[in-house]
Amino acid sequence: MEIDLSPVRELLSDRDADGYLVSEDGDDADQHYLSGFSAPDPYRTLVTGEGTHLLVSGLEYGRASRESRADTVSRHADYDYRTLVAEHGPEEGTVRCIARFLGDHGAGSVVVPHGFPAGTADGLREQGVSVTVDREGVVEEIRAVKSDEEQGYVHDAQRANEAAMAVAESLLAGADVEDGVLYHEGEPLTSERVTTEIEIALLRRGCALDETIVACGADAADPHDRGSGPLLAGEAIVIDIFPRDKRTKYFGDMTRTFVRGEADDEIERRYGVVEDAYEAALESVEAGVTGAAVHDAACDVIEAAGYDTLRSDPAAETGFIHSTGHGVGLEIHERPSLSPSGGELEAGHVITVEPGLYDPAVGGVRLEDLVVVTEGGYENLTEYPMAIAPESRER
Amino acid sequence: MEIDLSPVRELLSDRDADGYLVSEDGDDADQHYLSGFSAPDPYRTLVTGEGTHLLVSGLEYGRASRESRADTVSRHADYDYRTLVAEHGPEEGTVRCIARFLGDHGAGSVVVPHGFPAGTADGLREQGVSVTVDREGVVEEIRAVKSDEEQGYVHDAQRANEAAMAVAESLLAGADVEDGVLYHEGEPLTSERVTTEIEIALLRRGCALDETIVACGADAADPHDRGSGPLLAGEAIVIDIFPRDKRTKYFGDMTRTFVRGEADDEIERRYGVVEDAYEAALESVEAGVTGAAVHDAACDVIEAAGYDTLRSDPAAETGFIHSTGHGVGLEIHERPSLSPSGGELEAGHVITVEPGLYDPAVGGVRLEDLVVVTEGGYENLTEYPMAIAPESRER
Repeated sequence: MEIDLSPVRELLSDRDADGYLVSEDGDDADQHYLSGFSAPDPYRTLVTGEGTHLLVSGLEYGRASRESRADTVSRHADYDYRTLVAEHGPEEGTVRCIARFLGDHGAGSVVVPHGFPAGTADGLREQGVSVTVDREGVVEEIRAVKSDEEQGYVHDAQRANEAAMAVAESLLAGADVEDGVLYHEGEPLTSERVTTEIEIALLRRGCALDETIVACGADAADPHDRGSGPLLAGEAIVIDIFPRDKRTKYFGDMTRTFVRGEADDEIERRYGVVEDAYEAALESVEAGVTGAAVHDAACDVIEAAGYDTLRSDPAAETGFIHSTGHGVGLEIHERPSLSPSGGELEAGHVITVEPGLYDPAVGGVRLEDLVVVTEGGYENLTEYPMAIAPESRER
Repeated sequence: MEIDLSPVRELLSDRDADGYLVSEDGDDADQHYLSGFSAPDPYRTLVTGEGTHLLVSGLEYGRASRESRADTVSRHADYDYRTLVAEHGPEEGTVRCIARFLGDHGAGSVVVPHGFPAGTADGLREQGVSVTVDREGVVEEIRAVKSDEEQGYVHDAQRANEAAMAVAESLLAGADVEDGVLYHEGEPLTSERVTTEIEIALLRRGCALDETIVACGADAADPHDRGSGPLLAGEAIVIDIFPRDKRTKYFGDMTRTFVRGEADDEIERRYGVVEDAYEAALESVEAGVTGAAVHDAACDVIEAAGYDTLRSDPAAETGFIHSTGHGVGLEIHERPSLSPSGGELEAGHVITVEPGLYDPAVGGVRLEDLVVVTEGGYENLTEYPMAIAPESRER
């Protein structure tokens, strides 16, 4: 994949700095994007005017040389790592090793991302390297606009997501109901059981998984509760799945809400309001519109229906208590943001649109699709029906 | 779980600082240990002389109040987060919000861990907060010694690991061999297929998974290669599984190496050498011995058999090219280290013992158990046979 590093080089020129240095856990998204490489242990990526340079352990050297898109790959041993660690301990030895690597590439001054380890930043400063923090997140900003290839990766993850959602929905549809509890093969159907079946479906499609949410009743009124225990008839069941393709490392993201059996009127009303808010937000999406305006479109519908939002009451604990959406790519939450602080959308942004309504006394309702922003609107990457009553969709 | 924060408070007193501040991704191990809480989004934990204080988003407030072991929980809205973000942007607004939270708890000077975000550290300094980095990693040091409860968590994860290894070994044992390739149900048995079956077994036992390794032939000669493609008879197949219990968040870790069919003499010889190195290292483990000494015990055996180690040749690319082991707990790689820089082992350390031999021309062999260091030696948390020929062990 070709990536455009010119914004990084402009930043270096503005700051009069020699390089952009990332030093994070091996699966950091910025680093993976810059290097085309990932590893179980920390490594370092340096972008200079001349090219992209990696510093890795001997263990990673062969794979980094083969797989990464760096112009040069060095290993710790090239800079006397073991001697430095023996003399100065692992922490300072590592910092001195990085300082030598920087020196080797003529980088006496570097810009680092917000999340760069403070210990390494201060340690490099002690070694005479000038370190300033990139508060704007230039790599995140580049990553926010997805190439066709990256859109394809997200789309693939979303395909796996749809298959997993179908497994979950079919379990709900096929469950027996006894005394208000859902049963599957004679046992209560729990959040945990549905989660396991979702995750197995994802594994079989080459995806890893993070924290799948299958939450019912009051659990679902907390948008971050992952849910536990038996699922109940008549209650809203929120299913939020965000798989990561193991090969490409890009995420998908989708939420549906189901009610098995008779939903009470208030749940049904909320479902309708959330669906309207979802549609209003979606229809407002296009390049040039701000994320804040999309969020406002969702808030308008929800407030008009008589519910609180964080816009109408910043301390609200019920109603619409999160933002309308976020970017999705190598991270599950990345730029842009569909929230009061959300800036202008650009063609190629991949975003969720996911309004919801929450109240412990009623439960939670959330509906979420994943779309690509285009010049004239959006392209929906999600092909999955929205319906409150679960149906058997297993293929 | 009771945790002993006295080393943190000693550090604060030595540094004449008011608090120890962690501000990381919500599943950071130090933060989870201090707060007893984890979240999908970043939050902050502050330890002062008075207690442990959390700063979380409104979304996390209810769960943090119920689940964490903090003495107080504040939310962003308590410190005018939205106004600050509107005025100063999300990055500086967040920093100013943290600064107010610190002020509220009388923390004008804080110590932060190595991995604390440099952007937040520099931002807090601009707000007049004194920030110094804890280079020794006081929380990691506390975490390294496991309570009985924590040892139980690791043991539980290792039980799931054994069940998953049995699934994998049984797949190898039951495979048909045609033209040197392993077949399962009429299709070539691949690394990917075995990995999927391992991960499904782990999911069914409440574990998440990171990057399972099922690597054959030259792939396995790179200790970090996760393996791909059809598995071959006569080649060494390295299976390294490190599940994380979803509930407790503690890891297990185990590696076995198998050869289906006739192993060539050199593979068989290496298997024997690695097994001897494993036993020598294991027998040297006890409280008071250094991690370096355990590593030396493994290197002695391997060098005596005529193979390189990083001790005999720091630039070695074949032979024993990693350390002998590492701590396991809330992180898959944590303290202590069984390497040249490894300090004194203490009772309650949970460590892997995992020598290996690697050469692209031959393949890889690695054997790994997970043990608790005791006063008189060790207790092995792993109950799984070591044998080069796979057997059907499924229950």
